[in-house]
Amino acid sequence: MHRERFYTLAASCPDRTGIIARVTGFFAEHQGWILESTFHADDGSDTSDGRYFMRIEVKADSLPFQLAELRQRFAPLARELAMDWRISDSASRKRVVILVSQQEHCLYDLLARWQSKELDIEIPCVISNHDSLRGFVEWHGIPFHHVPVTPDTKTSAYAEVQRLVDAARGDTLVLARYMQILSPELCAAYPGRMLNIHHSFLPSFVGAKPYHQAYQRGVKLIGATCHYVTHELDQGPIIEQDVIRIDHTDAVEDMVRYGKDIEKTVLARGLRYHLEDRVLVHGNKTVVFR
Amino acid sequence: MHRERFYTLAASCPDRTGIIARVTGFFAEHQGWILESTFHADDGSDTSDGRYFMRIEVKADSLPFQLAELRQRFAPLARELAMDWRISDSASRKRVVILVSQQEHCLYDLLARWQSKELDIEIPCVISNHDSLRGFVEWHGIPFHHVPVTPDTKTSAYAEVQRLVDAARGDTLVLARYMQILSPELCAAYPGRMLNIHHSFLPSFVGAKPYHQAYQRGVKLIGATCHYVTHELDQGPIIEQDVIRIDHTDAVEDMVRYGKDIEKTVLARGLRYHLEDRVLVHGNKTVVFR
Amino acid sequence: MHRERFYTLAASCPDRTGIIARVTGFFAEHQGWILESTFHADDGSDTSDGRYFMRIEVKADSLPFQLAELRQRFAPLARELAMDWRISDSASRKRVVILVSQQEHCLYDLLARWQSKELDIEIPCVISNHDSLRGFVEWHGIPFHHVPVTPDTKTSAYAEVQRLVDAARGDTLVLARYMQILSPELCAAYPGRMLNIHHSFLPSFVGAKPYHQAYQRGVKLIGATCHYVTHELDQGPIIEQDVIRIDHTDAVEDMVRYGKDIEKTVLARGLRYHLEDRVLVHGNKTVVFR
Amino acid sequence: MHRERFYTLAASCPDRTGIIARVTGFFAEHQGWILESTFHADDGSDTSDGRYFMRIEVKADSLPFQLAELRQRFAPLARELAMDWRISDSASRKRVVILVSQQEHCLYDLLARWQSKELDIEIPCVISNHDSLRGFVEWHGIPFHHVPVTPDTKTSAYAEVQRLVDAARGDTLVLARYMQILSPELCAAYPGRMLNIHHSFLPSFVGAKPYHQAYQRGVKLIGATCHYVTHELDQGPIIEQDVIRIDHTDAVEDMVRYGKDIEKTVLARGLRYHLEDRVLVHGNKTVVFR
Repeated sequence: MHRERFYTLAASCPDRTGIIARVTGFFAEHQGWILESTFHADDGSDTSDGRYFMRIEVKADSLPFQLAELRQRFAPLARELAMDWRISDSASRKRVVILVSQQEHCLYDLLARWQSKELDIEIPCVISNHDSLRGFVEWHGIPFHHVPVTPDTKTSAYAEVQRLVDAARGDTLVLARYMQILSPELCAAYPGRMLNIHHSFLPSFVGAKPYHQAYQRGVKLIGATCHYVTHELDQGPIIEQDVIRIDHTDAVEDMVRYGKDIEKTVLARGLRYHLEDRVLVHGNKTVVFR
Repeated sequence: MHRERFYTLAASCPDRTGIIARVTGFFAEHQGWILESTFHADDGSDTSDGRYFMRIEVKADSLPFQLAELRQRFAPLARELAMDWRISDSASRKRVVILVSQQEHCLYDLLARWQSKELDIEIPCVISNHDSLRGFVEWHGIPFHHVPVTPDTKTSAYAEVQRLVDAARGDTLVLARYMQILSPELCAAYPGRMLNIHHSFLPSFVGAKPYHQAYQRGVKLIGATCHYVTHELDQGPIIEQDVIRIDHTDAVEDMVRYGKDIEKTVLARGLRYHLEDRVLVHGNKTVVFR
Repeated sequence: MHRERFYTLAASCPDRTGIIARVTGFFAEHQGWILESTFHADDGSDTSDGRYFMRIEVKADSLPFQLAELRQRFAPLARELAMDWRISDSASRKRVVILVSQQEHCLYDLLARWQSKELDIEIPCVISNHDSLRGFVEWHGIPFHHVPVTPDTKTSAYAEVQRLVDAARGDTLVLARYMQILSPELCAAYPGRMLNIHHSFLPSFVGAKPYHQAYQRGVKLIGATCHYVTHELDQGPIIEQDVIRIDHTDAVEDMVRYGKDIEKTVLARGLRYHLEDRVLVHGNKTVVFR
Repeated sequence: MHRERFYTLAASCPDRTGIIARVTGFFAEHQGWILESTFHADDGSDTSDGRYFMRIEVKADSLPFQLAELRQRFAPLARELAMDWRISDSASRKRVVILVSQQEHCLYDLLARWQSKELDIEIPCVISNHDSLRGFVEWHGIPFHHVPVTPDTKTSAYAEVQRLVDAARGDTLVLARYMQILSPELCAAYPGRMLNIHHSFLPSFVGAKPYHQAYQRGVKLIGATCHYVTHELDQGPIIEQDVIRIDHTDAVEDMVRYGKDIEKTVLARGLRYHLEDRVLVHGNKTVVFR
């Protein structure tokens, strides 16, 4: 955790000799003070080729130029290394739109973290298919939009959600137990920027009522999974997971209760990794530079 | 978790032959339907004598009499077995007074659980030595009392706290990161009914700034402890503990952040055990019938 | 843990009023000293009927008769309550046959526990489809049988395994990473007495190469599962599970290595529960009285 | 995990701009292929000055020279950066001397890992103050030395241990539940190369009988700590720790049993980090590049 303003480079490129030297050499040349840096070489054992991942935090005022110029100066090197890259600025807070349904545990948890500045973000609005959490959200000074979703109105409802997100200039979407199957359009609209919390230890118990499935199977631990949303239900790249022990005395409703504690923690951790540009997507997997 | 009304017997007595038979025989005689029952014999290896602990849930309407009569009828047997005992009624919700300071994470967490009825309790009031959380508490319809505490006014301040608790007919007190050292009078006033959450894995790092202590010692896990308050600081019977992994990259402020997640979970679990009469104090230790 | 000789009743029966009173009353009547007792009512929410489970340890010399007479005297009550029941004697050590392949981690772990008497069992023999661990096993004074298994000889090989187990009067079989798919006959021969350790957190990653499957899916935790063997591969009742955290830096071989630590611990815990008659099978699930 | 031969640089130096660029630039200049690299800046919040830590694995045959020349060529840069540094070769297996007493769980565990090549080390000898594990060790083809220790012979006994270690050219010492308080001379002889496993979650329960201490305090988790030995008992830099849950039903002997599982796992993990040059000592703390 760094209090001073910093820039974060998150990037990947084909593996080759000298990548770190080239990239850190660029910063060193300009007296850039590196606060944190992590590198990872994926040897390509599950794909055809090796790929290199990196994340570097540089103190903003150690550089003799501003963000725009940094990006401009870095671009030629990035091009040479055939990089996918982005540089973010700790001074620009991300704009996170939260989607909820009726369950409040993740929402309370996220707003407590936002309130205490643990999550240093803007929440331009909360969107829900129910109106029940309006008062709580509005008390925090956050706009609340009620967009009902019925089988017949799905398409228009999700178009409205998308319109609201865009109007609010949301750059990250969090499905905080939104409990709805999104339209393919909405799934596709924010690639790598829409996070879901699924209430099972994926890939076990995909789909509806995972705690009931877990109860039937008699597992001894239950879990939760934070992942990016893709067009395939519960199949997106996994960012974070955790589990909690249960036993034969626990009924489904006990599992639901235990599960909530895991869900909110896993979602908060996954979201933090995302917000700090610690997550790089690689195919259907993630590199998470904790 | 049982939806129907039930009575809970929590008791301990000197160990001898036939205790379970006598106690469950009493319920069987009256057609009492036992929903859950747990027994534990402490062999006295750390004290002089063996002691027997039990907790029994009986469906209320399976018995042919009401709570008062149940207590009256059970009393002779309890006397014969030299029991410490209590019988509570799931229909009488406990009255939990929460004490907070300026940190909101435990308060948000407890109110979310109360709001969703996960914690089926009354919160007659919240008391704080700061005024900052008043709005949030009052929005929930819960009275908020600001009782400033200064070195000079400690005695009168804690007398006022005690007056407020008693006026609110609070039966359980939760120090949800209250961060104040109580007066001996207040410590003594609610024995076995005042829970604290300490931000370390006790007995490590007693007292102030435990995360700083943990940082200095270079531990690889940090923790939190929910315990009953006694007159000795951080020495009361431990109800629940948990830990989370950290590493050399974590500064004290990261540990504080991770710690909050453990604190609120451990407090919520410890409080639940207490509220469900699952905790029996034995000397300076607890039997927790999970 | 009790040093003195004791009998263990493990039983289940249809739920009704007064079961505990009847059963513990039986022991009390004979001055039986109950060391440990646990009860569990399954409300039948996932089946049609409620069922009651119990496990009771009674000090052997507190009873005025021997095991055979205990069983005989208990039988009428068991019949009346329509019980499935067994009573074991802590003085009769269970006879555990271990089946291994080439990986040694579970075998070393089990023999260390046996050597130190942590597992107070007889190991009448070890059976393997390879000869490589013979020396290690025989050094411990345990007979070792090499029974090669090829696709063509499966039936006769497993018949030979069964012959060896029966000749050794084995009552429990442990597949300690045996890595072979058994014949239906062998699966059926020791119901509720053959334990397997599967190297994934079931139901995820059934079948072959679970660590490769886990790597492909990009999960953030891997696990192991100890379960009873049934005719369906990796589908038997789960006794114990655990997980360990991995991240993007871990290749499949790292996962294999981490996995071994979980496998041996989970197997040892599951086996201990089984040996102490703490596991009661209920349909395809288990009640584990820890 | 890398199968090909590689060199590992483990180093620390005062923090300044451009360290990574300089060091990785050195390797890039010689076409060195970096397999793994980790960096950490300690901001000096608990000491007076910032310090920079790094660990870099370079594929051996990507460099145009051998280890000796690598060290020679790297030396000027190291000098310029005022580095503490070492470069090891994955082809030179470390020589680990194991010290044990009578408990076998850690020894079995380490030898299983050595046998399977999970730990790719030499074990030139095992030293014990008892003779009971001789047969097991010698069966593995490892020399065993029995060096009795009595209050009167401590000094000469530890001198003999030191003589045996040096004669065996041991570079790392592992106290695998050796259970003896070493002489100050022995403690000082192998700084940063002698690992102990303590059977508590330090700093709780320093010294003798930690499980008894834990039982008395009524903690809900017990742990183990792998640390470097220094002259102060149980106060050396912590490398790894872990915990396991217990409850009121666990007697001291149960805690001992659970504890063993944690002890061997924590020791094995700590030892692996040490062997792979992942541990850098910083004052009384460690940086562990996992």
